[in-house]
Parts: sequence; C-alpha cells; structure tokens
Amino acid sequence: MNDQALGSYIEQVGRAARDASVAMARATTAEKNRALHAIAAGIEASLTELLAANAADLAANPELDPALVDRLELNPARVAAMADGLRQIAALPDPIGEVSNLHYRPTGIQVGQMRVPLGVVGIIYESRPNVTADAAGLCLKAGNAVILRGGSEALQSNLAIARCVAAGLGTAGLPANAVQVIDTTDRAAVSALLGAQRYIDVIVPRGGKGLIERVSAEARMPVIKHLDGVCHVYIDDRADLDKAIAIALNAKTHRYGVCNAMETLLLAEDVAGSALARLVPLFRDKGVELRGCARTRALVPDCVPATEEDWHAEYLAPILAIRIVPDLDAALAHIRRYGSQHTDAIVTEDVSRARRFLAEVDSSSVMVNASTRFADGYEYGLGAEIGISTDKFHARGPVGLEGLTSKKYIVIGDGHVRR
Amino acid sequence: MNDQALGSYIEQVGRAARDASVAMARATTAEKNRALHAIAAGIEASLTELLAANAADLAANPELDPALVDRLELNPARVAAMADGLRQIAALPDPIGEVSNLHYRPTGIQVGQMRVPLGVVGIIYESRPNVTADAAGLCLKAGNAVILRGGSEALQSNLAIARCVAAGLGTAGLPANAVQVIDTTDRAAVSALLGAQRYIDVIVPRGGKGLIERVSAEARMPVIKHLDGVCHVYIDDRADLDKAIAIALNAKTHRYGVCNAMETLLLAEDVAGSALARLVPLFRDKGVELRGCARTRALVPDCVPATEEDWHAEYLAPILAIRIVPDLDAALAHIRRYGSQHTDAIVTEDVSRARRFLAEVDSSSVMVNASTRFADGYEYGLGAEIGISTDKFHARGPVGLEGLTSKKYIVIGDGHVRR
Repeated sequence: MNDQALGSYIEQVGRAARDASVAMARATTAEKNRALHAIAAGIEASLTELLAANAADLAANPELDPALVDRLELNPARVAAMADGLRQIAALPDPIGEVSNLHYRPTGIQVGQMRVPLGVVGIIYESRPNVTADAAGLCLKAGNAVILRGGSEALQSNLAIARCVAAGLGTAGLPANAVQVIDTTDRAAVSALLGAQRYIDVIVPRGGKGLIERVSAEARMPVIKHLDGVCHVYIDDRADLDKAIAIALNAKTHRYGVCNAMETLLLAEDVAGSALARLVPLFRDKGVELRGCARTRALVPDCVPATEEDWHAEYLAPILAIRIVPDLDAALAHIRRYGSQHTDAIVTEDVSRARRFLAEVDSSSVMVNASTRFADGYEYGLGAEIGISTDKFHARGPVGLEGLTSKKYIVIGDGHVRR
Repeated sequence: MNDQALGSYIEQVGRAARDASVAMARATTAEKNRALHAIAAGIEASLTELLAANAADLAANPELDPALVDRLELNPARVAAMADGLRQIAALPDPIGEVSNLHYRPTGIQVGQMRVPLGVVGIIYESRPNVTADAAGLCLKAGNAVILRGGSEALQSNLAIARCVAAGLGTAGLPANAVQVIDTTDRAAVSALLGAQRYIDVIVPRGGKGLIERVSAEARMPVIKHLDGVCHVYIDDRADLDKAIAIALNAKTHRYGVCNAMETLLLAEDVAGSALARLVPLFRDKGVELRGCARTRALVPDCVPATEEDWHAEYLAPILAIRIVPDLDAALAHIRRYGSQHTDAIVTEDVSRARRFLAEVDSSSVMVNASTRFADGYEYGLGAEIGISTDKFHARGPVGLEGLTSKKYIVIGDGHVRR
C-alpha cells in the first residue's frame, strides 16, 4: 500500500473500532459471554480451516528459524487451548458496571465510582496466532473494541481466527468490527496505528524487546508494557535455608526464557557460604552457568567473573549472576540500581526485614518467601492476562480484565445544587 | 542560561528528586504529618517575608492585566488559607502502604496489592503561588518527591514558599530536595522538564489551555490533565421540573469561569416549552446570553442562533448553548459527539433512563439529578485535589492523593515454589 492508502485504511479501521466500542460498552454480560462461547465453538468447528491457513503461513515463510516456527505453528491441541481460554474468560466475572464506594456526602449527594471499558485497545504482537483469540476475548469481555496487528508471517492464521471471532460476535448480536485484524503485512501499518491516538485509547505490545522499544518510542497514546525482567532473589542471613534453596532453584530453573525468572541472586554474607555449598551443585546439575562477584568466586573457584553488564542482564537463559552483599540495605540498593521494577523476592524469617523489603522495593511484584515465577496473571487469580506492566501508571504487574477498564465517578442526587 | 547549563541544572534537580523520592517512600505517616504542620507554621511565621517577595514579583511585572494580578497577589488571608490547606492534608488518611485484597491462592501463596508512591511528580503551573504549597503538600503526603515549575512572574513568591517547605521538611527529618522549585524564568526549562522522563514519573499541568496543550504535546511521561470542560445537562421529559430548573440554573450560574460549569443545555422536546418558559427569565436575570438551535429559537424568539462551534464551545462565561432533542438517545449522541468527557448530568425521575445515562455517558463524572458543579475533589470527599483528569488511563475525574500513588502486587509465601 502507498502511504495515502495505508493512512485511509487505518483511519477506516479506527473509526469502525470507535463506533463498535460504543455498542460494546453497552453490551450485557450475557451477550458478551454468548459471543465468547460462540467464538470458542466456531474455532473448534473450524479446525481444518485454521490448520490450512496456518500451513499456508508456514509454507510462505520457509526460512523461519525453528523457535519461530514453534511459535507460529498451530496444531489440534493449540486450537483446543484457544477455545478453552475463551471459555475461561466467559467464566470470569464481568468487571463492567461494578460500582464501588458509593456513599453519601454531607451535601446529600451520593458519590461512587463505576468501572467502565477503556474504549479501543490496540494489540501489536509477533508470531503466536493464539494471541489473536486470547487478546480478542479479554478485550471483548472488558467491553472494549480491539484492533489486532499480528506478525506478518502469521497473517493467514490470524485472519482465519478473526473470521471465527466475527461470526461469534454476530451470533451474539455484537458488531463484527469490535475485533479487527489489520489485513496488510506493510510494516508502516504499525507506525500508522501508533499515531492513531484519536481512535486507540491504549496500546499493548506483546513480543520481543525490539518491538516493545519501538512501540514505546512511537506511540502517541498510553502503552501497557514491560521492557525487562531483571528479577532478584535476596537470601537474607535470617532465611530458612531449605526454603531459600527451593526458591532460588525454582526461580532460576523452572523456565529460563520467561520474564519472571530470577536473573541475579543476592546473598547476605553471613549465609553465602552455606547457601552456595548447597545451591552450586544443584545449578551445575541443571547446566546453569554461574557468574559471580569477587567474593562469590572466592567461594566458588570455577565461577565466571561477573562484570557490570551482568548485573543489568536479562539472560532468559541458563545463566545466573550471583552477588554477595553485606546486608539488607545493600541488597535494596543493588535492586534499586540494577533492577527493572518487575519482580523481586526476599527469603527471610525476620518479620521486620520482610516488612521493609515489601515496602521499599519499587517493583510491580514484591515477594516474601516465594518464587518470582509466581508473578503471573493466572497465579494471581486474574483469570488471564494481557501482559505484565512494569510502569507505575494505571495497571502495574500482571494485567487482567481490570487493566483494560477505567473508573469514572458517578453522582446521584435528588435535585441537589451546589451552595 | 544557555542550553547546556539548563540541561545540567534540570539533570541535577531530577537526580536530587529521584534520590529524595526513595527517602519519601520510606517516610512514616507521623514524619509526613509533622512536616506538613511545620510547613504550615513556617508559612504563618513568614507572613512578612512572603508578602515582601510577592510585592517584588508584582513590582517586577507592572504590565500584568488585573485578572493576572489578582491570581498572583498574596495577602494575609491567602497566606492563612495556604497554611490551613496543609493542615487539612495532614488530617487526611495516609494512602501509602494500604494493602488491599490480600487473599490465599490455591497454591498457598497470599496475593494482594499495596499502595505505594508514584515517585517523582512534576507540576507545571501558572500565576497562583498557593499552588506551590498545595501541590507540595499533596505530593509529600502521598510519599512523592515533587518538582515545581511556576509562572515566571511568581518566581520570588514561589521561592519564598519553597524556603518554608524546605525548613518544614528539615524539622521532620525529611530531605529538603523532596520539594524543589525550578529557580529560573527561562521558558526552555519547561521543555527540559518534559523531556526528563528518566527522573519524572508524571506531569500535572495546571493552568490555561495553551499550557496544557503544550505539556501534552511535549511530555515524554504520563500527564494528568483535562483540556476542556464542555459539560452538559440533559433535561429528560420525565424530569421533575423544579429539580431541573434548580440544577440547570446552578450548573450555569454558580460560577462561570470553572471547568465543571454547564456549557450546553439539552432539552427533551416534550419538556422544552415548559422548561424554557421558566428558565429563560432566570438566565436573563443573571445576564446569561442564550444561543439556541432552530427549535429553541422558535420558542425563544430573541435567542442568538447557535452554530456548530457553539456545541463545541467551553465558554467559561455567561453564555449558554441550548438544543432541543427528540429523546434520550439523541441526547447521548450529542454528548458523545460534542462532549469533552468531563462532567455530564441527566435530570429525570425515570430509573431506566438514569441507569442508561450513568452506564453510557463516557465522562469522568456522570450525574443524575445533581448539578455538574459538584465535580470537585472536595465535594467528592477526596480532601483536596491536584487537578481533574478527563483521560481514562490511571486517575479519572478529580485527582486526590490516590491519583498520586500506584499499586504494586505483594506475594507472601512460606517457601512456596511454582510447580
């Protein structure tokens, strides 16, 4: 497409989304749930078409590396998982219309807050076609319209899923334009969306760091995002060592490529020797490369020397940076300097230190005696998540349905005027 | 200052604010309240110095128009009001550290949310020196550091107030850099602040539309703002006319220059004649100019014809646009098209219509049978407000202490790991 055609295409999509958002905001819980169930059934009934569209995407991109092929590929189990996910979203309570804190003021008016949709959500994502169904489902349940821009290599898969979504919306009497997939592989479409603040209330990028940086730099509307997950576990000298070992091992090795995996282990000096004596063989068994400060290397002779970059690193790999610190204050200072405000944990039996860590660590999730791997919408009971936010504004931490809503004030009087 | 000197000055201020924000986040409720009371006492004790600094500002700006002089001027009553405002903020509950919704998950971890400060708040405002004390007090109570950039013409007044603030912070053992006033009249300082997203977490512009537009366009961090207050009152044909007349009159004439004043009156056609017969003489008595649609002019012959611009207008003056609409749907459509998402009210005795209006009007405050003038932090019981937000993201409507905070997740386990 040339610039002008692209501009008018995005304009048309934006306007249609804005119009659909009015109907979506008005949609009843029953209508939204009916749509979610109809979409789930449609996805299951369209298994053959979805696999064919996906095969076309795979055939059109023969040079993808195996990790990307794995993300792009649909199979019967993944299609069933998409349908299940939508039914789980249908089962969640509807956040829209919830009124909180309605109370009488001395003037006689009642003041409260009502939860309402944000309006139009834009999602920019990479290869996984399941995001099309998941994100559409969450936005729909929260009463929003959504514009989806997936990876170019997944276009046919995404369009096939979008057809199921449109049919399901229609079954429930909701506007098909409530969920639109951008139907062009033109990379300039992303910039056009990021400049469409008139039509899009919030953008959620889902993908690698390059995508998120680009979206953050260009977007003219608010962005729900996290850039890095440099998560820490601090083992205090008043830790129960059994708990500390279990948590450190789980936080690093449960999964490597995830944003809530531990990347740096901080150890209070009085406990470092005994903790490392038990942890090092366990990490070595799992093939984790250890990179330590000078004091760590004195205790673990064949440990790789850690450099300044290691304290900043999000490895997303079986590599762990280890630093021995004098005390809690030094651990807090390290996290403040090098952390990414994602998730950090302390292991301690000391109530005062746990209380300080909880209050003073400025991260989206702060934990006591639990693995950083728990930082997740499902684990927190949100039902599903659209992403994890490390910003402090609006939603922070795992973002579920509530993060896709806003609260407005409502006032109910009986002819009241201001004196 | 040249660009380089200005850049390094703002860098130094930003870094000092960031450092101070760590201490402020840790400050106890008692310390923050002690500081607020000490600042209030210091302001009262410095009456002579404050008036002298203010006289110097007035003398240095002999060409200000009378409205600006009125905003800039301090007198004993205004100084006393600043001190009172700070004591009122001290009396508010401390929002920081509040834990909500802490509950056990099936895995055994406890998950909840803790309210924490945003970090560093930037306030960019115009002539009124009292904003220096009010905004500093609110930010301080919410555990934030703050950078204040007031109008050039108020610099000496603002610096004199800032000296009282710094002394009060010192009395309470809190860092003086928690509240900094930008000590240059260089206009480029505003741009430098708006680009300092590394140091400033949120910007709050307070002033005229020009200032707010400039801040919104340039800021690289989130902005809490409202641009326009095009507020509507819709008188439904099922309204109680006595209530409708009282509300319409109050919403327009209680104060003209405020963002929550009614600018457009919408009337259901079945009630328009009887409502206008009573309202027109009342508005005329107050000297309100009426601008009506064709149907309004048929009922009010000497009414000025309203143009398309009138439906968009925020008059902030004794002028009112009036439109007769067929029904609630047409009123909702008018508000959707021309409203500024600030405050809109319906007058009706019909529960179903009230329920629809509350749910469907997408404004920061939506009211039933009450004057739009109630849209205000004090009236809502927030204790004080830093501004009113018409954005949907983060804070919406009057923004008090909570709008200057964020919620992070906390997780408490007992050695829990993820399976």
